[in-house]
Amino acid sequence: MDISLYLHSQGELIEQELDRLVPMRHGPGEQLFEAARYALLRGGKRLRPIFTLTTVRMLEGDLQLALKPACTLEMIHTYSMIHDDLPCMDNDDYRRGKPTVHKKYSEGHAVLTGDYLLTYPFELLATDSDLSADKKAQLIAILARHSGSDGMIGGQVMDLAYEGKKVSLETLRLLHRNKTAALLIAAIEFGAVIADAFPAQLDSLRQFGEAIGLLFQVVDDILDVTSSVGKHGKGMASDIRNAKSTYVSLLGLEEAQSYALNFYHQAVRMLKPLSCDTSLLVGLAEFILTRKH
Amino acid sequence: MDISLYLHSQGELIEQELDRLVPMRHGPGEQLFEAARYALLRGGKRLRPIFTLTTVRMLEGDLQLALKPACTLEMIHTYSMIHDDLPCMDNDDYRRGKPTVHKKYSEGHAVLTGDYLLTYPFELLATDSDLSADKKAQLIAILARHSGSDGMIGGQVMDLAYEGKKVSLETLRLLHRNKTAALLIAAIEFGAVIADAFPAQLDSLRQFGEAIGLLFQVVDDILDVTSSVGKHGKGMASDIRNAKSTYVSLLGLEEAQSYALNFYHQAVRMLKPLSCDTSLLVGLAEFILTRKH
Repeated sequence: MDISLYLHSQGELIEQELDRLVPMRHGPGEQLFEAARYALLRGGKRLRPIFTLTTVRMLEGDLQLALKPACTLEMIHTYSMIHDDLPCMDNDDYRRGKPTVHKKYSEGHAVLTGDYLLTYPFELLATDSDLSADKKAQLIAILARHSGSDGMIGGQVMDLAYEGKKVSLETLRLLHRNKTAALLIAAIEFGAVIADAFPAQLDSLRQFGEAIGLLFQVVDDILDVTSSVGKHGKGMASDIRNAKSTYVSLLGLEEAQSYALNFYHQAVRMLKPLSCDTSLLVGLAEFILTRKH
Repeated sequence: MDISLYLHSQGELIEQELDRLVPMRHGPGEQLFEAARYALLRGGKRLRPIFTLTTVRMLEGDLQLALKPACTLEMIHTYSMIHDDLPCMDNDDYRRGKPTVHKKYSEGHAVLTGDYLLTYPFELLATDSDLSADKKAQLIAILARHSGSDGMIGGQVMDLAYEGKKVSLETLRLLHRNKTAALLIAAIEFGAVIADAFPAQLDSLRQFGEAIGLLFQVVDDILDVTSSVGKHGKGMASDIRNAKSTYVSLLGLEEAQSYALNFYHQAVRMLKPLSCDTSLLVGLAEFILTRKH
């Protein structure tokens, strides 16, 4: 299957579901829904939900069951970007070529819209009548754990702690394991739980997710240097402006590129023990390695 | 039972459990745990968890089962205060007589600490091995719904929308139904679910919770005017500084006091159909009516 066609078709599915899950509602609190839809719709590569759907497809699970949970990952990802873009965090004015939520609305709205997109996924999962109570609890535990102090938020706090400091490669790896990889691991675990994967499969997939997450971040750091605002859509890369260590600043561009290639090979290797057609996951890994924005 | 002794003993229980649930962890992200514990421990009346425990006690449910879920409500309440105190929101420098989290640490840490205290409750509930999967899902649904766009966050967005504008009493009531009462209703629903209340009991308790929540807010507005910084601990009342409508600004002090008394009587009336000893809940209502800070 052509991977860019696949990404496009899955992206459309996810866009429709997000549009359905967060409808515009008019009334005194309507700016919440306006801002949430502004941040959530028509943007991004939807990699996290696509990894969930692809894992379920590969394990021959029920795709209908997967779409809503997959979208909750995109909401969590979006909330984290809204809060991360705030002036007191990375202070980014643009995201995906559009003004960030606090520029378009206000900082107060950005805080609350982020809070909403962090809260609503748990309501959606807990009330999803297609899921057994046991699966609901498993998915919620995965989502909260990988978003929390041992995942995304933990990574963000390390990010603040190390701003302006040169860190070791090992520390940078741990930081991005938490900040970036955790939610991609969650996406793949979501797929494994929904499709009732065996424990050994879950374990391989988790390691694949970790390698993919780190691959994604190295490529992101490379693109921050090699891509212009029009392509990457974030204005001058805030990691550079905020004097953060990146894989490129630690390793140099060429070494970072071979570092990325290593993570790609590691990811593909993790899929070997799975006794199923892994070509779509390999295709996604390759897409992440070779993406230009 | 003497209600202030009861509040004290329950408060101690909750304090111990919160201390256990959010231990200090050292390492690169330690400021997260430091700030979370700073905000969470040694402060507040713990009304939300106390309402959960009291409801369970009244319905003769399993109190051991209730303590951890009760504490998740206090975490959500604390996150909402941390975000609400931010300069882009109410801009409060003091809370309970101590510098707010963004003054003590930084705005970035306040955003992330709030995010953490919003995320962690869902992990705790989803992984609580004492709860059935079904109860986990029910509690998570209650917590997320009352914290979300139809609850606390919805109320906060209305609050932003109406800042500096004079609103009707009906609008103010809806705003506080969402901003303040929702989480108190959640606390009482938590107790009802944990103790397996009948649907009719749940319904009465929910209405009791709504009246209690509105009572709490009217009294809060009254205390903002009648209490000094040392007693109320928040510095000059930000609602007044931020030109927000309050029950006192709409009704005047005397009328607001009789409005509060009405909510108290309404709350007590809602308990009448319950065929159990409601004296502790009545005692809590009375405490909220007559509290001085």
